[in-house]
Amino acid sequence: MPEPTTPLFDTLVIIGPGLIGSSILRRAREDRRIARHLVACDISPEVRARVAELDIADAVEADPVAAVRGADCVIICVPVGAIAMVAAQVLPVMKPGAILSEVGSVKKTVMDAVQPLLAAHPDIAFVPAHPMAGTEFSGPDAGFATLFEDRWCLLTPPENTPPAAITRITTLWEMMGARVRCMTVEHHDRVCAIVSHLPHLLAFTICGTADDLADETRSEVLDFAASGFRDFTRIAASDPTMWRDIFLNNREALLELLDRFIADAQAMGEAIRTGNEDVIVGRIRRGRAIRRSLIENRQA
Amino acid sequence: MPEPTTPLFDTLVIIGPGLIGSSILRRAREDRRIARHLVACDISPEVRARVAELDIADAVEADPVAAVRGADCVIICVPVGAIAMVAAQVLPVMKPGAILSEVGSVKKTVMDAVQPLLAAHPDIAFVPAHPMAGTEFSGPDAGFATLFEDRWCLLTPPENTPPAAITRITTLWEMMGARVRCMTVEHHDRVCAIVSHLPHLLAFTICGTADDLADETRSEVLDFAASGFRDFTRIAASDPTMWRDIFLNNREALLELLDRFIADAQAMGEAIRTGNEDVIVGRIRRGRAIRRSLIENRQA
Repeated sequence: MPEPTTPLFDTLVIIGPGLIGSSILRRAREDRRIARHLVACDISPEVRARVAELDIADAVEADPVAAVRGADCVIICVPVGAIAMVAAQVLPVMKPGAILSEVGSVKKTVMDAVQPLLAAHPDIAFVPAHPMAGTEFSGPDAGFATLFEDRWCLLTPPENTPPAAITRITTLWEMMGARVRCMTVEHHDRVCAIVSHLPHLLAFTICGTADDLADETRSEVLDFAASGFRDFTRIAASDPTMWRDIFLNNREALLELLDRFIADAQAMGEAIRTGNEDVIVGRIRRGRAIRRSLIENRQA
Repeated sequence: MPEPTTPLFDTLVIIGPGLIGSSILRRAREDRRIARHLVACDISPEVRARVAELDIADAVEADPVAAVRGADCVIICVPVGAIAMVAAQVLPVMKPGAILSEVGSVKKTVMDAVQPLLAAHPDIAFVPAHPMAGTEFSGPDAGFATLFEDRWCLLTPPENTPPAAITRITTLWEMMGARVRCMTVEHHDRVCAIVSHLPHLLAFTICGTADDLADETRSEVLDFAASGFRDFTRIAASDPTMWRDIFLNNREALLELLDRFIADAQAMGEAIRTGNEDVIVGRIRRGRAIRRSLIENRQA
């Protein structure tokens, strides 16, 4: 831990101040032990104007190359599909000894694309992070300083990462209010496929299934959604580009789990068709048991 | 509407004072314009003792036949699979001109089983109701007086039902705080299959899929459930007997929708496998559009 009077970072750059990026800025703005100087960088003039209005950064930049010069920590907060491109832009100009991080929801494909670039910049530490927090809203207005409070942040640093860099990113996320755990990119992607990516895929799908119904029924789905369907649509309201990238980048783990899920759903359908009460009740009981474990784990 | 000084019913009997039944009692206890005398009836000695302790009825009975004698309204609040049996018990002893109601989540199979019994009791009006409200908890302690506030209550009376009886049950639910709509049993079951029964089936299933994962991943599912998975498990926590009966009684509509859903999920999987971005983004957009409609409809 740094001394109370010395900030963790001198200059912290957030590239892409959307829901996650602007929440980091807001928290760092409130707690000046995190960084002395906060820079926000975005290609969109509207986002830059809004970040300036919100006054959540000390400087706002359009060009990542200009933004990261001299920074000791750069966090890329753009959709998963654009992370490697931004990394390729900023790595050549980053200060020796600086830390590069990103906050994507998928890690393996990002690591596969960034690792070859890192070979040419052995003096930059790469510490990917996945703060498991979010809402169905996006953009700089959607962020808030307590978004990461009591949430998990998963780190997936490559094997050769200097421990000091991992410690600093761990400290950063702890100062954001999060609990931190390290794991491999493969394990990360598998866990996230079941806890987040598959549920989102199913939520998007059931909205489409409902939308395909005859007009009369569809309008009533909207009227009577309170029971169950509503919970699905909350998670179906998320950003399309972000989720397209997540699905495509975590293709393998997600499709394997989707196949398992469809087989399980078909087995449940078969039990209902044949009136197999034991199978039906057994599956309902498992759902309740998992729910109970979640409550004991403070996750519900 | 009755005069303010005359209650809507003289004696209202609730058979099965669980989450729904005890909530009706609590509301009627607070608003004495609903019924002069409130009777709770349950086969379980524990439930009867608890209802007496909670003091939410004027009388507590073990035997439905004794409970309903002289009542002008009887509402059966037991799981769907037991409704017709209770109706068969109470119809022969109900007072001429009285109203029989029930609060099951599936209507067609209940109507098919009760309608032949009604033929022998033309002086009893049958007005099935489905208050679309609930929590994942059950039993007399789970109820509360405001459960139906601003929720829909769907009525599915047979064609020959006296309009006065429909009006009284409509008034009852409006006094519970609900909005009321009438529809056929077939239409009811189809709408509920998509807004409630299919989402519950999927939620139970994904909990099972997660439970089948390798031990290490499974324990992390519990740790990291906050993103998406948690919303599924909330609805997966409901009562097994109740849901078994719902699935088996709404088999036809539910299985048809499950087939459509699985086809849609497979199409989404195929789009991810082949990298068809237009299909993926199109489906995500539909989810967001439905969510937006729900918010405009005050259902989210």
